[in-house]
Amino acid sequence: MKRIGSRTVYEGPIASVRIDEFSYDDGTTAERQVVSHPGAVAIVAYDELHLHLVRQPREAVGEPDLLELPAGKLDVEGESPLECAQRELGEEIGMRAAEWRELKSFYTSPGFAEERVTVFEATGLERIADHRPDAEERIEIVAWPIDDLDAAIDACEDSKSLIGMLILRAARR
Amino acid sequence: MKRIGSRTVYEGPIASVRIDEFSYDDGTTAERQVVSHPGAVAIVAYDELHLHLVRQPREAVGEPDLLELPAGKLDVEGESPLECAQRELGEEIGMRAAEWRELKSFYTSPGFAEERVTVFEATGLERIADHRPDAEERIEIVAWPIDDLDAAIDACEDSKSLIGMLILRAARR
Repeated sequence: MKRIGSRTVYEGPIASVRIDEFSYDDGTTAERQVVSHPGAVAIVAYDELHLHLVRQPREAVGEPDLLELPAGKLDVEGESPLECAQRELGEEIGMRAAEWRELKSFYTSPGFAEERVTVFEATGLERIADHRPDAEERIEIVAWPIDDLDAAIDACEDSKSLIGMLILRAARR
Repeated sequence: MKRIGSRTVYEGPIASVRIDEFSYDDGTTAERQVVSHPGAVAIVAYDELHLHLVRQPREAVGEPDLLELPAGKLDVEGESPLECAQRELGEEIGMRAAEWRELKSFYTSPGFAEERVTVFEATGLERIADHRPDAEERIEIVAWPIDDLDAAIDACEDSKSLIGMLILRAARR
């Protein structure tokens, strides 16, 4: 499989759309629509008592209040996924972590979108004294009792957050 | 949160793009880019020995060979998610199932795309005698030893497939 052509058909504030053309080993060709995306990170941040989650409006899917892991887009030039996760943990829930570990990396929807998400585990948590949440983002911080992970998984409708919580639950059993 | 405006800025073969405008209870407004999508299904189909997976090229993300659950888009008018899953199980891997159960439903990337995926469990499997795979789709069927689910989860980089396999693994422990 080889990409033999690409044209941008739409440029938007978050995602752009390309039509790419591919050739295959058997000599045939096909066109595919690709939604571009810089990639993202999500963080499974927990201590003995709580998994630290957020609730936020997700207008794109008509949900005023979706339960998710802290997360963010790789939208700072030159920043690694780990650096992005460390920054987002501070910005979204006002915490830093002593230990970081990559849990999993995957495509959210490889049939049509480039987005790749890396999920990190963050432990050894410490509160940042002067944390000021970004009012624009309308994010509510939720300290979820870690002994009730099953209920968080039931309530969650976001793919990256489900993957992080399912891996955490498996590790704790 | 209320949608107060919407305009389509791009129409494509799989996904279209809208700019929607929202108002919030505090009187402020915001614009959001939304990638439209009809939604999809994925199927955790297994018997005593095997979990039935597929490998296929995913051009959008530059992967010639991604390991996934059988899956498909809700692109037939009036078809329910369950009916779509039953059709896709036949088309993609040539099987029908006696028992169907919904495992989980979620958004793949709620920050910018509408896509919602429903994952079903399919058991009581039976081969369809006259199955002819769609050559256009370049799908390879993989009978993965179910006792080695950990290796499938390690090898998988697709969000819906990871969620289905992580739920299956938890149920089997």
